[in-house]
Amino acid sequence: MTIGFVGLGKMGRGMASNLQTKGFSLMVHDVVEAPMTALEALGAKRGTPAEIAAACDIVVTMLPTGKEVAEVVLAPGGILDHARPGTMILDMSTIDPETTDRLHEETRRRGMTAVDAPVGRLAWHADRGQSLFMVGADDADYQRALPLLQAMGTTIHHSGGPGAGTRMKLVNNYLAIILCQLNAEALSLSQRFGLDLGKTLDVLYGTTATNGQLKVNWPNKVLAGDTEPGFSIDLAHKDLTLIVQAANAARVPVPVAAAAREAFSQARARGYGQNDFSAMVDVACDIAQIERARLPKGYTPPA
Amino acid sequence: MTIGFVGLGKMGRGMASNLQTKGFSLMVHDVVEAPMTALEALGAKRGTPAEIAAACDIVVTMLPTGKEVAEVVLAPGGILDHARPGTMILDMSTIDPETTDRLHEETRRRGMTAVDAPVGRLAWHADRGQSLFMVGADDADYQRALPLLQAMGTTIHHSGGPGAGTRMKLVNNYLAIILCQLNAEALSLSQRFGLDLGKTLDVLYGTTATNGQLKVNWPNKVLAGDTEPGFSIDLAHKDLTLIVQAANAARVPVPVAAAAREAFSQARARGYGQNDFSAMVDVACDIAQIERARLPKGYTPPA
Amino acid sequence: MTIGFVGLGKMGRGMASNLQTKGFSLMVHDVVEAPMTALEALGAKRGTPAEIAAACDIVVTMLPTGKEVAEVVLAPGGILDHARPGTMILDMSTIDPETTDRLHEETRRRGMTAVDAPVGRLAWHADRGQSLFMVGADDADYQRALPLLQAMGTTIHHSGGPGAGTRMKLVNNYLAIILCQLNAEALSLSQRFGLDLGKTLDVLYGTTATNGQLKVNWPNKVLAGDTEPGFSIDLAHKDLTLIVQAANAARVPVPVAAAAREAFSQARARGYGQNDFSAMVDVACDIAQIERARLPKGYTPPA
Amino acid sequence: MTIGFVGLGKMGRGMASNLQTKGFSLMVHDVVEAPMTALEALGAKRGTPAEIAAACDIVVTMLPTGKEVAEVVLAPGGILDHARPGTMILDMSTIDPETTDRLHEETRRRGMTAVDAPVGRLAWHADRGQSLFMVGADDADYQRALPLLQAMGTTIHHSGGPGAGTRMKLVNNYLAIILCQLNAEALSLSQRFGLDLGKTLDVLYGTTATNGQLKVNWPNKVLAGDTEPGFSIDLAHKDLTLIVQAANAARVPVPVAAAAREAFSQARARGYGQNDFSAMVDVACDIAQIERARLPKGYTPPA
Repeated sequence: MTIGFVGLGKMGRGMASNLQTKGFSLMVHDVVEAPMTALEALGAKRGTPAEIAAACDIVVTMLPTGKEVAEVVLAPGGILDHARPGTMILDMSTIDPETTDRLHEETRRRGMTAVDAPVGRLAWHADRGQSLFMVGADDADYQRALPLLQAMGTTIHHSGGPGAGTRMKLVNNYLAIILCQLNAEALSLSQRFGLDLGKTLDVLYGTTATNGQLKVNWPNKVLAGDTEPGFSIDLAHKDLTLIVQAANAARVPVPVAAAAREAFSQARARGYGQNDFSAMVDVACDIAQIERARLPKGYTPPA
Repeated sequence: MTIGFVGLGKMGRGMASNLQTKGFSLMVHDVVEAPMTALEALGAKRGTPAEIAAACDIVVTMLPTGKEVAEVVLAPGGILDHARPGTMILDMSTIDPETTDRLHEETRRRGMTAVDAPVGRLAWHADRGQSLFMVGADDADYQRALPLLQAMGTTIHHSGGPGAGTRMKLVNNYLAIILCQLNAEALSLSQRFGLDLGKTLDVLYGTTATNGQLKVNWPNKVLAGDTEPGFSIDLAHKDLTLIVQAANAARVPVPVAAAAREAFSQARARGYGQNDFSAMVDVACDIAQIERARLPKGYTPPA
Repeated sequence: MTIGFVGLGKMGRGMASNLQTKGFSLMVHDVVEAPMTALEALGAKRGTPAEIAAACDIVVTMLPTGKEVAEVVLAPGGILDHARPGTMILDMSTIDPETTDRLHEETRRRGMTAVDAPVGRLAWHADRGQSLFMVGADDADYQRALPLLQAMGTTIHHSGGPGAGTRMKLVNNYLAIILCQLNAEALSLSQRFGLDLGKTLDVLYGTTATNGQLKVNWPNKVLAGDTEPGFSIDLAHKDLTLIVQAANAARVPVPVAAAAREAFSQARARGYGQNDFSAMVDVACDIAQIERARLPKGYTPPA
Repeated sequence: MTIGFVGLGKMGRGMASNLQTKGFSLMVHDVVEAPMTALEALGAKRGTPAEIAAACDIVVTMLPTGKEVAEVVLAPGGILDHARPGTMILDMSTIDPETTDRLHEETRRRGMTAVDAPVGRLAWHADRGQSLFMVGADDADYQRALPLLQAMGTTIHHSGGPGAGTRMKLVNNYLAIILCQLNAEALSLSQRFGLDLGKTLDVLYGTTATNGQLKVNWPNKVLAGDTEPGFSIDLAHKDLTLIVQAANAARVPVPVAAAAREAFSQARARGYGQNDFSAMVDVACDIAQIERARLPKGYTPPA
């Protein structure tokens, strides 16, 4: 049985490579040549979306936004138009709930099935098959997708029925991303106050003020002077836009998220888009003309 | 040697009781009668602020706001006017940096010293001598205050020189309080999306989205249906007001904090002031007419 | 020469009626039957979009969002696919700049032209041929569209080249809509302060605090107790969403607009969506449990 | 009868000069020497606050903040302690409602009276006796203050009973100041969109988007390239701080005002504090790296 895989971007190529090297035969497609060649070197075949739809029972899609999912999968002439009844679309893109719901409706209408399983963690996790997945699917579909997910990741959450994966991803990224602006404000204040950064973290790590970004991501990224993007401000802004839009569509007021999104917009306007999203504290310090927050060499967090 | 203690409120009475029962002789004062009687029952004497100033080398103050510190300690006829050179004021109130700085200047000018050591954690920690302190003091003053602090708490951070304790407390509460609004938005969105709350926490606890409020405080408070105030929305709004004001005075833009503060203001306008600050999620759900977030009985967080 | 007209909604039907009765022969289309019948009664013909494209040199479109413009005009099988070179698309919808730009590019590529001319003022102005238009077009196209615009409105701004009409509309609605939230906050504060509403307006109208909403719209709508929608909160939220999205896409930080949009989202969550957008002050008073702002009978604004 | 006048700052000196030259005999005080000398040259006497309190039936105060009013008028040894029953304090400072209320209570308790009458418009209006006043007073007190007000200004609003003047001023400045941030966002968007500024104003002035700042103040200030402060960003931030604080104390949520205040804080952090508050659009363009908004020479607004 051949598995289709459409979308070999920064995340997708690692995920596809894990599938191929762990025993699945892939037929792959991307708009860019290089990753297709790389997958061929591992034994995968290449095909157009139409060829993939015709040849595969399961098609994995890992695309940038809901717009691409709509165009490649749902639009006239897209994957669904070339697929057989019984086909499963395993969409692992991070997209808007509206498109996810359309995907489930369209596949159901045609006697196919869909699973929404967006991906957590970073590109280097995907490369090593250590991703986290939030899965929205009926039980039978979940079981059918499980072997593939297990080949690509180490943590798999069955978050609920169809659509629950996409929505869980939004809730999770909501917190992870806005925490960056929250930490940015707190640490720029700490810097202006002249507090020692190490002493500040010593306190914060031991109270309910602590958070995953500040504890796990920041000490190795911006606070160590490394702003290379594990997850870029541009991508964070894109996800935040998706989240705020979904919340507004669902009539859930999110004033803090909305304020944070404008801070990310400022960051982009000032040229920080390709920095790691922890660099939001550098943006805050830049705008307010405060010294940047950097840990002294050899800082060890409290046990 | 007798230690003065002014301010026997919800936190102060526990702190004073620990001092008195662990070997210090206190002379105490409050504007309310009951806690003074209770401290007398433990062996403390009572006195006016003037009598305390005259009798004690160290005076602990634990007052509601900077205004009371200014009136009781700094104003004409206040404690400083009745104290001898060499006296140490150990101010443990959570107040504005401006008043803390005035306290340090005024004591220095008179040949006295001051330590700012605001208190973390909740009233029940204070009762058991398990508080956390963020201390702003020169080394010598820190050493002089240390035995008292050790009698009242278990975690003591020497955060820097004079004024650093007050400022560290603001940075810490900044995060702890605003996290409540952040979680409120994320969980009200999760509720509207129809996601299972237990499954949502299962995901969030395992990613960088996690945070001290969501992990430690919330499962035992609002998510368990308990909104009795460990720390009330009214107090959180008061601290947030202090923080936003201090940030504005220091020219540090805090757009997310400012948005969060208005959410706390809404909560108070709608009668939630005496609820625990985790109940911000109930406010969000109330305003948007969403079902409240409550954990199923027997929920166990992932290991 | 027959003019095509697609989109006979609340605004479109009035605009089309004015064209038909002022000497233009229309071929019209809508997804709803009733307004087509009404236009036929005035002498218009009806047709599918494809028939209209084939028959008309100028096609006016007045559609809800950019999505409908993309589907009806730009998509495969849409109007452009059935139109001849030289055709002009006069798009009067309020849509996102991205779709407007695509419209101009697509028409240019096919040897056609386009004009973006979104409509200001309310439905009753459209009914009377008293609309305001912001027009983005090259000079020649502007001249070609002018007779139609003059039949439908009384104020015509040539705002710049292709795309400038859509963008001007967004800037204009930006202010008009957010003013409603600004006035809502100011007047709810005034109410809580116990100030007389008439006296408050007497002051505001005479200083730089005055604004078009407060002066022109509000005294006849919410402040007179009339919340029937001239322009509904739902539509205002839709436009605000468009504006915030366009600003974020253009990297223009808009923190006040973002905060206002969440207030409109709250209004919708609480069931105010079909009220006039001046009723934002009722929402503010409702949420904060303040008495509603209503003018005393017989209030006369200062000369 | 001699009138006392305390506070000869930027506004106060012009107001006092008008009183003195229009027939009132003043006894004046300020902490700065120069304006006292200037008033003496016009025939005024000088005195300490205590001397003024002892000599005058009416004492006008024009001080920077509520803190100075509390210290100079209300504190032990202040003006009230030296004044006779029947004295009227005419406080024209822009201060917090809490201090205004304390002033009314304290004077009432001592058989004196107070009027709160903060001042609108700018310093050059005060110089010419063309100020606007919002007056909070009982009718009798209003009549007693009226001759003085008429000597200093041209527009006098009796806004309600004691405290209504201070509160009306806050509501008015709320709108006038936040309009600047609103216009800043709209015009920075217009600039980024490449719209012609003159054409933009042509549209905005003719719709409900128009507002007093955009119509009256801005064309002569920032849009003409003049950022000399008629009213500075520092002062606007101070007033906005007062307003947001008063709204929070009164439990009136003001999310848009809170967002705007942080924008003013950014402006100050970036060194714009001494610019006119219309220069908020320069701040927005600076932060987002957009070309500044300036009118072409010879721009004439539509009739």
